[in-house]
Amino acid sequence: MLIKKINELREYIQPYKSDKETVGLVPTMGALHNGHLSLIKAAKEKCDRVVVSVFVNPIQFGPNEDYNKYPRTLDADYELCTKNGVDVVFSPSPAEMYGEGFILSNDNLTYVCPPFNYTDKLCGKSRIGHFDGVCTVVNKLFNIVQPDFAFFGEKDAQQLIIIKKMVKDLNIPIEIIGCPIVREESGLALSSRNKYLSDKGKKDALVLSKILQNIKQCYLKGITDIDALKETAFSLLNDNVELEYLEIYNSETLEQEEKANNNSRAFIACRVEGVRLIDNIKLGD
Amino acid sequence: MLIKKINELREYIQPYKSDKETVGLVPTMGALHNGHLSLIKAAKEKCDRVVVSVFVNPIQFGPNEDYNKYPRTLDADYELCTKNGVDVVFSPSPAEMYGEGFILSNDNLTYVCPPFNYTDKLCGKSRIGHFDGVCTVVNKLFNIVQPDFAFFGEKDAQQLIIIKKMVKDLNIPIEIIGCPIVREESGLALSSRNKYLSDKGKKDALVLSKILQNIKQCYLKGITDIDALKETAFSLLNDNVELEYLEIYNSETLEQEEKANNNSRAFIACRVEGVRLIDNIKLGD
Repeated sequence: MLIKKINELREYIQPYKSDKETVGLVPTMGALHNGHLSLIKAAKEKCDRVVVSVFVNPIQFGPNEDYNKYPRTLDADYELCTKNGVDVVFSPSPAEMYGEGFILSNDNLTYVCPPFNYTDKLCGKSRIGHFDGVCTVVNKLFNIVQPDFAFFGEKDAQQLIIIKKMVKDLNIPIEIIGCPIVREESGLALSSRNKYLSDKGKKDALVLSKILQNIKQCYLKGITDIDALKETAFSLLNDNVELEYLEIYNSETLEQEEKANNNSRAFIACRVEGVRLIDNIKLGD
Repeated sequence: MLIKKINELREYIQPYKSDKETVGLVPTMGALHNGHLSLIKAAKEKCDRVVVSVFVNPIQFGPNEDYNKYPRTLDADYELCTKNGVDVVFSPSPAEMYGEGFILSNDNLTYVCPPFNYTDKLCGKSRIGHFDGVCTVVNKLFNIVQPDFAFFGEKDAQQLIIIKKMVKDLNIPIEIIGCPIVREESGLALSSRNKYLSDKGKKDALVLSKILQNIKQCYLKGITDIDALKETAFSLLNDNVELEYLEIYNSETLEQEEKANNNSRAFIACRVEGVRLIDNIKLGD
């Protein structure tokens, strides 16, 4: 079932709740790939009913980012969902979510703002306001669908950590399930933005996962000095890859720790052919 | 029933929901007076079950405000509630709401932030961050109780308008009911902060309601020029009353309009004996 209106969605899923069926929500921006599919499968396993939202959320894009160009493939997304047993695909328009003539500004919209200590680093540092936009739309989707569980990929690790923090801080009665990164055989983490890359770009992009794997191997061999771990990256970088950040933080709090440990995670962002790509890996087994 | 823990509250009210009883929430900071009682009565009329929360919310007080001194009268509050048919009084500690060792800061807490256009005026102008604190705690209480209806007094008109805006912007599935200001026979709007006033102070404080009444009478006689309406206040002010603001705005959007109209509301804040008092009145009948 494809639904575009908030009220219709609420009506449609009301019987699930009356029947005490559990509902899982998989929030996406569409352009679905096998990474999303793994979220859908996890939701199908855990919940009686699965709702997938497909919404390219304008308020999480900065003015110079790829909102307009972001891939939109609703027909294919819908087909993938129905083939995989999704009960409802919810695909609202920006006007349905933010009102007609919406202006993307905290002058006239209530925002949900995650804490600075979680957003002043990694993607939040270059994407000012990005996580405010993410938390706001996710909060809206939570209020619209009122699921029991919501599924997010570990690929957007900072997002997952921030959403878990939001749920805790605001006492949202939903359990957040993080699902492992899905990779191509080459090691490249799946991302809707990979569509922007040429074949050569996809090869260059392997540097991200290689750097992370290298750091993990060094950690497992006993190196815990964070600067030393980060320095292992430099030999792998080349002119086709512009490093934005490479950091090692606590997996739950994003705090900088003195030494790497089993709960540390390495985070990387690079530009390849102008496309911003991110990846991450937990250091402990 | 008096409950202090979030999980216990959720368990206790779960059967209401299974039985499809409607739940009304009356969020308060305690020190209950007849104004709160009118909210409780409205909730009792509209809902099968009524939950009153009593929580002096630290994050809505500024560093130089009266958080520590704010009246706390839980025993009397609880008695008033049970006498008036309230099903549950929910009175959590700050640690229960914000975690042990909580620090009141958006460095480490997710906030719900209402739009600047609603907070850059009236009480929001002098109480920086106040409405962020209000929206955050109300959002938390909404997620904890998940009521069908929530009741707020029109005395805190800006708060009521901002909460309605939050509910709309975030698609919160709760209906907000505003209830009329309750006044002493003298005209003084009831407020927990009236307890800070001497008898003389309470007399001086009548200036607020007199100014508002005067403006309303002038409006009803045909004056719609906003400056002219505001100027009628000056003859009523005296040295015992320090005016913080007097404004006439649209009742729903808090926008400044060119002329007063039936949907305009006059808002006033004054200090009397160092106590900050607010009041408001709708100009149309």
